[in-house]
Amino acid sequence: MEYKVEKLKVNYKTLEEFKRFKEYGLQELSMLEDLQANIIDNDSESPFYGIYFGDLLVARMSLYKVDAKFNRYFEPPHDFLELWKLEVIPDYQGKGYGKALVEFAKKMNLPIRTNARMKSKDFWKKMGFESVTYDMARDRGENPLFWFPENFSQKEI
Amino acid sequence: MEYKVEKLKVNYKTLEEFKRFKEYGLQELSMLEDLQANIIDNDSESPFYGIYFGDLLVARMSLYKVDAKFNRYFEPPHDFLELWKLEVIPDYQGKGYGKALVEFAKKMNLPIRTNARMKSKDFWKKMGFESVTYDMARDRGENPLFWFPENFSQKEI
Repeated sequence: MEYKVEKLKVNYKTLEEFKRFKEYGLQELSMLEDLQANIIDNDSESPFYGIYFGDLLVARMSLYKVDAKFNRYFEPPHDFLELWKLEVIPDYQGKGYGKALVEFAKKMNLPIRTNARMKSKDFWKKMGFESVTYDMARDRGENPLFWFPENFSQKEI
Repeated sequence: MEYKVEKLKVNYKTLEEFKRFKEYGLQELSMLEDLQANIIDNDSESPFYGIYFGDLLVARMSLYKVDAKFNRYFEPPHDFLELWKLEVIPDYQGKGYGKALVEFAKKMNLPIRTNARMKSKDFWKKMGFESVTYDMARDRGENPLFWFPENFSQKEI
């Protein structure tokens, strides 16, 4: 089945929908405050992408392009995408929504980094993500996983 | 009640005990591999501190000193401690073990940064930690909280 992935706009409706997701945190609270204080406009761009089932937001993720100069993972340095807050609400899990979001991110043809929960590691493996060598100063307890576009040549550092 | 906080050594016994903690991840797996491959010696230093109840490791945390030059949080730049994997095993929660570990970290007299779960925010607030202004490029979905030693003057950026 094909799902339509949409870039989510920052507005009160979306921010209300975000409360259904477990990973609601400082990022969302900060967007809400910025909207309330008119620091950002209604319907501003957000780093979130999502999938609706009818009117209901059932899956979402955040994507952010990290500049090559902040790359501490591979040589030569190269921009990569950071993916976080990938989440599908409970009744809609196991139906390919998470996969659809990750496939969408892959189409941007940049390496993707994510910090995985250990219990979600099988999912990421199936999606072609692989572990890096742990480096405490850099990773500080995270479980970084990377996916690389085909023919992308890199040397992990 | 006073608890004795110990710096944990990397050895097979400790790594086996770590499996009781939910946040077991790449960091622990990497320590195990390094030990198995003789990359590190038995009883090497680890970034972990813990509290034993008799023979049982009931609480632990990781601490790492981040050099001022990597500080993207306050001006003037200053070393700070990163605290992660603070965890008390289920039957021992609510008895002050977590607090004892955090108090131990505070005695090092450096600012402390942690990335908090939203549901643990009340605990961190009680421990004197405060939110920073969210910055997507820097924080990427994290919920950073800081504690500052008394008389520590800084300007958040």
